[in-house]
Amino acid sequence: MSEHDGNHVTPPPMATPEAGASDMEGQTPGTGFGASAITRRWRREDLLKRGGLGLRAIALLFSLLAFIIMASNKHGDWMDFDKYEEYRYLLAIAILSTLYTGVQTLRHVHELSTGKSMLQQRTSALVDFVGDQIIAYLLISASSTAIPLTNRMRRGADNIFTDSSSAAIGMAFLGFFSLALAALISGHKLSTQPYL
Amino acid sequence: MSEHDGNHVTPPPMATPEAGASDMEGQTPGTGFGASAITRRWRREDLLKRGGLGLRAIALLFSLLAFIIMASNKHGDWMDFDKYEEYRYLLAIAILSTLYTGVQTLRHVHELSTGKSMLQQRTSALVDFVGDQIIAYLLISASSTAIPLTNRMRRGADNIFTDSSSAAIGMAFLGFFSLALAALISGHKLSTQPYL
Repeated sequence: MSEHDGNHVTPPPMATPEAGASDMEGQTPGTGFGASAITRRWRREDLLKRGGLGLRAIALLFSLLAFIIMASNKHGDWMDFDKYEEYRYLLAIAILSTLYTGVQTLRHVHELSTGKSMLQQRTSALVDFVGDQIIAYLLISASSTAIPLTNRMRRGADNIFTDSSSAAIGMAFLGFFSLALAALISGHKLSTQPYL
Repeated sequence: MSEHDGNHVTPPPMATPEAGASDMEGQTPGTGFGASAITRRWRREDLLKRGGLGLRAIALLFSLLAFIIMASNKHGDWMDFDKYEEYRYLLAIAILSTLYTGVQTLRHVHELSTGKSMLQQRTSALVDFVGDQIIAYLLISASSTAIPLTNRMRRGADNIFTDSSSAAIGMAFLGFFSLALAALISGHKLSTQPYL
């Protein structure tokens, strides 16, 4: 945490005062950020960390629901999810998203409770952002793909198969929504990393 | 630009040296970023600005192609794009994306050439990021939606209609890819805005 904040507080020691002089005009040298600014920043970062964790936990719940609902959606005859590539795709992405958000939630809970991080802070921020963003794109893609097929089926018959499919699509969409928000937070975290 | 960089170079004047003292240990007060660090930062920001503009221009090209190819995809009988909701959706999103990327490209070219910005810097960064991200999500959604229908048609017949549809889907996907990269850049810009 202090290493991270150090970016804004500590000027790099290799710079001489003369080198930066033209840009340092009009300020008293030696005045740093106030303690209130620093604690405000800490509080915001803590909030963001908890927010990111919460959103990933919600995404885990929704992907798990989408996975379970779609995987149990077999009612014989034409009403088997695995007869349709759209539903198989949705199931695959739901499983992927469940695994990803599960691992991420565990990792962040472990980090919050022990205070130790398994990865370097920068690597962790990068993994978080890239993962969140890619899984969010996959989830929106999978749920959009399954919508027209379900719509068309519902025009013919409205039964437990189409209802379960719609429920799984809805869950995948909600999972997308939480992961997209989590990606916002992790993108912000990544951008405020020093020397990126 | 100088207002933006000021965030990292100029400490706020209301802070007393004592208040931040505990976090300022182990550094000589008054040493700022070197000129080389500042010009490096400027050069990087200039590169990011041009990169964002270039990516949006590429996205404009691809969305325009998707729009034109899909809108001219009428060959009579069952081979009319407007008989299928997936293709109508893709057309709508391609039009939306063309308009958005067109306006954004014009705005940024105007900004680069005159040096004047139409919006405040923070508003502009926010509009860029939100717009890029939403249009990217819509494009991936629209192109994923149209894929299974096209696949299914191709199993029956492989003609100019299915080929044009595939081309439009491919263009929309490439547009999504450039806008997703543009969203990365604008998200980074937004996060490095002061006092967000």
